[in-house]
Amino acid sequence: MSQKQEPRRKPGRPKAGTDQPDARDAILDQAEFCFAAAGFAGASLRDIATRAGVNQALLRYYFGSKQDLFDAVFRRRGGMISGRRHVLLDRALAEAEPTVETLVRAYLRPQWEMKQSGPGGAAFIALQARVHAEPEAHALDLRREVYDPSLKRYIDALSGLLPAIPRDLVATRMAFLVGAYLFMLNDLGRLADLSEGQIREIPPDDMLEQLVRFLSAGLLAPAI
Amino acid sequence: MSQKQEPRRKPGRPKAGTDQPDARDAILDQAEFCFAAAGFAGASLRDIATRAGVNQALLRYYFGSKQDLFDAVFRRRGGMISGRRHVLLDRALAEAEPTVETLVRAYLRPQWEMKQSGPGGAAFIALQARVHAEPEAHALDLRREVYDPSLKRYIDALSGLLPAIPRDLVATRMAFLVGAYLFMLNDLGRLADLSEGQIREIPPDDMLEQLVRFLSAGLLAPAI
Repeated sequence: MSQKQEPRRKPGRPKAGTDQPDARDAILDQAEFCFAAAGFAGASLRDIATRAGVNQALLRYYFGSKQDLFDAVFRRRGGMISGRRHVLLDRALAEAEPTVETLVRAYLRPQWEMKQSGPGGAAFIALQARVHAEPEAHALDLRREVYDPSLKRYIDALSGLLPAIPRDLVATRMAFLVGAYLFMLNDLGRLADLSEGQIREIPPDDMLEQLVRFLSAGLLAPAI
Repeated sequence: MSQKQEPRRKPGRPKAGTDQPDARDAILDQAEFCFAAAGFAGASLRDIATRAGVNQALLRYYFGSKQDLFDAVFRRRGGMISGRRHVLLDRALAEAEPTVETLVRAYLRPQWEMKQSGPGGAAFIALQARVHAEPEAHALDLRREVYDPSLKRYIDALSGLLPAIPRDLVATRMAFLVGAYLFMLNDLGRLADLSEGQIREIPPDDMLEQLVRFLSAGLLAPAI
């Protein structure tokens, strides 16, 4: 902490507005907060640069357009979540008898871990909820790029456990699952009102287990 | 169509930029499209007024702030959906033996009807998806105001059919249901990719029945 590294200057890099070696991470961190709080349209590169302690030229040098910056933010933690899903699936499949509940829990848990990992993780979860509500083709492409490879492995594994359900229907039901868990991740406050104030906020791990129970029953329902 | 009614001027109404008696509806219609396409932050009152063929002063006279206009848009069709839910619940409860599937279908169907009612209904569904992804307290209050009265009646009715599930848990599971159906309503495109192009878009009524099957199984799962 007390020893400062000299920033490494690549040839052609513009004179930086900062001498932090981690300016790139600082920009991503601040962009994450701004996009989460204000949405894509509401966030400004000027604000993000100011908060990150860099000038806008450096921000643009590193990340290009606002859309490129958003994509970099989404890929950073989205990639961590998708990677963790792969790892937990490998672990579940190594068990003697994996169940639908085991696979559903493995799929959901990385999002819960991210939300609870700190303010940056929580900001990413909020930003992700906005991306999933965006109708634009670009947002859909981005989600697919980041999440579909691990999701497809889960669909395959679940299909193996659910031989009476056509694979297409397993895929459709996984989309139902994604909708349900994203909504709950982002929106725990709604619950207290629905139950007329008789429950307080459900602890995150209990919520995860309630979702696992509900969604596994849905996946196991006989095909129409 | 060929006979024009004289616009009725209330005392104190400012000189209108239009003589359409339905300027109020035209503003709501155009606001609905703009908010759906650009989000709250991205929509501009100037654009909305121009598209509605009125001046901004009239828009502000009728609706006040941008937030007030948004709320009026949300209440208009949200109120229709909530009202239709009440009606379909009354009808389901009048049956000899209502089932969980009957109640789930009655809850979901008004949203499907709205989406398929035309471009305005489809715009409302898109706008609603954005509202549900908004973290702001105001958005949550608006959703509660519009949807919770009918939702609470469904929770009561489902609790009557599910005596082994605590009412709080029925309420929690209804939140899972809301997340799943909103996601599917807004986001049918994702499916084709998950199944690697082997299915085309699922017809809306089939999607509704698949959701009813999945969500009813989840509601019926034994409590943890």
